[in-house]
Amino acid sequence: MRFRTSMILVVSLCMSAAAFAEEKEKPTRDAPWTLGVVLFDGYELLDVMGPLEMFGNVGPALKIVTVCKEGGEVDAAQPVNAVASHSFENCPPLDIVLVPGGAGTNEFIDDEESMEWLQAVAGDAQVVASVCTGADILGAAGLLDGYKATTNKLAFNRVSKRHDQVEWIPEARWVEDRDRYTSSGVSAGIDLSLRMIEIYYGTRTAERVALGAEYIWNRDPSVDPFARE
Amino acid sequence: MRFRTSMILVVSLCMSAAAFAEEKEKPTRDAPWTLGVVLFDGYELLDVMGPLEMFGNVGPALKIVTVCKEGGEVDAAQPVNAVASHSFENCPPLDIVLVPGGAGTNEFIDDEESMEWLQAVAGDAQVVASVCTGADILGAAGLLDGYKATTNKLAFNRVSKRHDQVEWIPEARWVEDRDRYTSSGVSAGIDLSLRMIEIYYGTRTAERVALGAEYIWNRDPSVDPFARE
Repeated sequence: MRFRTSMILVVSLCMSAAAFAEEKEKPTRDAPWTLGVVLFDGYELLDVMGPLEMFGNVGPALKIVTVCKEGGEVDAAQPVNAVASHSFENCPPLDIVLVPGGAGTNEFIDDEESMEWLQAVAGDAQVVASVCTGADILGAAGLLDGYKATTNKLAFNRVSKRHDQVEWIPEARWVEDRDRYTSSGVSAGIDLSLRMIEIYYGTRTAERVALGAEYIWNRDPSVDPFARE
Repeated sequence: MRFRTSMILVVSLCMSAAAFAEEKEKPTRDAPWTLGVVLFDGYELLDVMGPLEMFGNVGPALKIVTVCKEGGEVDAAQPVNAVASHSFENCPPLDIVLVPGGAGTNEFIDDEESMEWLQAVAGDAQVVASVCTGADILGAAGLLDGYKATTNKLAFNRVSKRHDQVEWIPEARWVEDRDRYTSSGVSAGIDLSLRMIEIYYGTRTAERVALGAEYIWNRDPSVDPFARE
């Protein structure tokens, strides 16, 4: 009896160790994760800047880079340009990859080099996320196959028809399924970001960030006023 | 009797004409207004990018420029840089001036050249607005004297004590008083922007913009969950 209990304990410990080795530890101040936000001409401004406001106030347990193909200045769909900190070539390894949507998504999807780069960095990352029609890019890269996901509700029919290996959720502010996080349109990326901060950095950190931004956080992913019939 | 009625009519018409001449017409596609968003190192990212998402989708009746002292790249308080389209020197006349807050506000206030420029362009503008502690800058420039205003609620006591010629409103998502609009912290700038779009471009335009961004618009300025005791 004692032998059997010990065996079960040992097997359990080994299994836990294996799971532990597979799954990277949560980020800490000493071992911060790196979030990479992908930029491309014609990205929707708030898809990027909403999450960057929230993640940008997490603190030293999260490093943040912005990445576009060549590095440097990128045109948003709205009238202000951003400067990507990295190019595809000099981008550090990413733990979280976040892909926005916008008018430029089709051009990104049609660019073979961009898609191959995304598939490679997403394959090495812990977590892949999208805002708005960024889910169209993830879908085209095969990164949502077998996952539940959502996207911008005005673009929902178009995007969901293009990627039939994805279980599309028509009514959701955001969807979390294992290591994939996808939000509804534009502003929904802020709610998703706070949820991701809650998961990886704790509820108190997420609440501190939301309070600092005086953001009325929509915490229930099933509340989606923009879902269509 | 007929003479008196005519006189009243003539006087009324003259008064209307005078008021009309003083007050610029509302912006149209053919006579668009120009919004200038002021940037400085250490501005709070979403103070700027939330309004730019909303105003940026109004359409051809609104031109938008971003302005910083020297023009070019500006550091936000969060990890992404923006590129200002104009410097103080080559900035076109502005109809709406929008001033964000953030960690860099004190430096802006302490810079004589920046404050003189702001006073000059604001004096020529139709409308002056601030987000968050941008109200501290407007207050320091004397641009809120005799007006009702609000600001970031975490900074409310500090900012309101500094400018005693302003009627500070402690519980308000935003405050509109004649040609001055001031919002509460960070995200409240989005609600304010939609309200300004409603006033100058109509409710349908504001609702289209909010829907396009899947933004849950907080339309009641008296609802302020971040007000303090």
